[in-house]
Amino acid sequence: MLIKVNRKELAKHIQIVQKAISQRTTMQILEGIKISAKENTLILTATDTEISIETRLSAIVEREGDFVINSRLFGDIVRKLENDIIDINIENYNMNLKCGDSIFNLSTQKADEYPDLPRVEENTEIKISAKDIKNIVKKTTFAVSTDESRIVFTGVFMDIRRDYINFVALDGFRMAIQKLEKQTGIEESIIIPARSLNELVKIIEDDEDISINISRNNIVFKFGDTVFYSTLLSGEFFSYTALLRDEHSISTSVSRKEFQLAVERASLLAREDRANLIKLNVENSHIDIKSNSEIGDVFEKVKSSEHDNTLDIAFNSRYILDGVKILEAEEINLNFTDSVNPLIITETDDASYIYLVLPVRLAG
Amino acid sequence: MLIKVNRKELAKHIQIVQKAISQRTTMQILEGIKISAKENTLILTATDTEISIETRLSAIVEREGDFVINSRLFGDIVRKLENDIIDINIENYNMNLKCGDSIFNLSTQKADEYPDLPRVEENTEIKISAKDIKNIVKKTTFAVSTDESRIVFTGVFMDIRRDYINFVALDGFRMAIQKLEKQTGIEESIIIPARSLNELVKIIEDDEDISINISRNNIVFKFGDTVFYSTLLSGEFFSYTALLRDEHSISTSVSRKEFQLAVERASLLAREDRANLIKLNVENSHIDIKSNSEIGDVFEKVKSSEHDNTLDIAFNSRYILDGVKILEAEEINLNFTDSVNPLIITETDDASYIYLVLPVRLAG
Repeated sequence: MLIKVNRKELAKHIQIVQKAISQRTTMQILEGIKISAKENTLILTATDTEISIETRLSAIVEREGDFVINSRLFGDIVRKLENDIIDINIENYNMNLKCGDSIFNLSTQKADEYPDLPRVEENTEIKISAKDIKNIVKKTTFAVSTDESRIVFTGVFMDIRRDYINFVALDGFRMAIQKLEKQTGIEESIIIPARSLNELVKIIEDDEDISINISRNNIVFKFGDTVFYSTLLSGEFFSYTALLRDEHSISTSVSRKEFQLAVERASLLAREDRANLIKLNVENSHIDIKSNSEIGDVFEKVKSSEHDNTLDIAFNSRYILDGVKILEAEEINLNFTDSVNPLIITETDDASYIYLVLPVRLAG
Repeated sequence: MLIKVNRKELAKHIQIVQKAISQRTTMQILEGIKISAKENTLILTATDTEISIETRLSAIVEREGDFVINSRLFGDIVRKLENDIIDINIENYNMNLKCGDSIFNLSTQKADEYPDLPRVEENTEIKISAKDIKNIVKKTTFAVSTDESRIVFTGVFMDIRRDYINFVALDGFRMAIQKLEKQTGIEESIIIPARSLNELVKIIEDDEDISINISRNNIVFKFGDTVFYSTLLSGEFFSYTALLRDEHSISTSVSRKEFQLAVERASLLAREDRANLIKLNVENSHIDIKSNSEIGDVFEKVKSSEHDNTLDIAFNSRYILDGVKILEAEEINLNFTDSVNPLIITETDDASYIYLVLPVRLAG
């Protein structure tokens, strides 16, 4: 194999496939990137068996071939070189790399031993803008469970209906739902590992359209020169719609920032070892927030829109804050039913996002 | 005690004294800040027994008094409050704090139990600009030893001569000397813990003059409203001037950036477990840098100014990089004697800084 390639382009594409390299793999070959050169194209592939990425760039290919090279070492070298053009020559699994006054000789591995990419039937295709994908990931993945023993809840449920898609994440204490209006023409539900979505958004660019294909075990995202594969989680998800009710005994609106800061201050005394407990007294035109620990207590008062009923309810402040601090709206709605049913938080001027927090039941 | 204080000013001064709060103290009182209110001034004090800081701000003091409060909790509360004015009332060691719609009740500790500040005789005084102090700290503290068993080498040696001061740090592998021209009128040498200097530069502002007083066991830095105390390390320092020679078999200059990048690339194969070994062949108009490991080898060539002799010499690349990457000069001088004596690195257009690296002796 003998090629000439632009250094910056190669560095950029290595950085893309590196998102599929696991830090803690036990298979040595998976620490590598597979690089194939043919027809004046380099194809870079990496996989950790859950996420796989393939990306392409132009190069002058004087002799075709392929090889596997340690991802971190090769990435560091290409990033730190200075000249525009890199010459790579591979003979007998030995790479000779030249760039300006730098010469590297590195041993490579056989490309045959590298795992194949997943096979995906190209049937249904959904297009979502990168901006929407980033919003969905930001507003859902933080709410997934970290408990590996119930693996389906470490993923985001993608519930595709004919004219919308719901993205749902939950962990038994709270639930986040982002709805996307979209004429899909199909009805299908899958569970995507949250980790895959978090890696995906690191490499998509803001103005791209992402084309999505779904097969039995995989989801594929295509954008620019890159194809991003993720395995799906199999299992039964929670029937989340049962938790959503339209009628609430109290629906009131507050300034997002004021509410967030008041809960944050109350949390300073709501210690981890006591479940970050804060108590809310929802009065007719304001909400009092209280918390205490052995070192003292705190009282906060947040103005709210007027409403009829009052309620005393307690929460783990962390779960409230997680959901409130990712919102951008100036005003948010707080919808209460009673002291044992969830608080439903929405943005006042945008109904597409719903965040639901279970209260803490107090003894007595 | 009853006071009214500007929230932002208080937050800023808490942040200053927090630099003296240790994360891992076993004395509970040292997790606290001591606050004294008198004559319309708040005096904040904190200490970890090595570093002590006192800082003052104006406040409306309606009833004088003093107390100790947990530094982190109090700092977090003040930082997260929203209104401009904080009212604090302390009765029977209970603090009542009000700010806008927030009310905190916190227990405090007796100020009598807090350690006293060091006593310092105000005799010699040296003034150094904040800019010079920052430069000295940046160019020396990285080179101190981390070996606590030889405690004097974890400090920076401040060697005060009548018309200059040398700041010296070394760890047995390399040595950094920053010289400051200054009419001090005295001759005295002290050792300042590197940690103290690193904390000091976090709180001094660029346009300040720092007034320095030295007594038997302490050094005191005064600036603005703040006094920063550090204990000194006692013991014999290394007679560093013996290592400095003016005659070298090779004195050559290189582009700092080119040399740094070439050493960085060579280091990618110079592995930690093999002492980051790189080999330099100093030729008449260029320096070849080589390194290898089981995965491959690398050759780099850096242009240098012409000179007569040639030399083969080996280094731990980390020690070269540590000293080169903090320099700003475009061109640096490399001064070699032979393969067993140190390389002396200086900036071509500024003789005030000297960085010295011992070579690695190769077998055979």
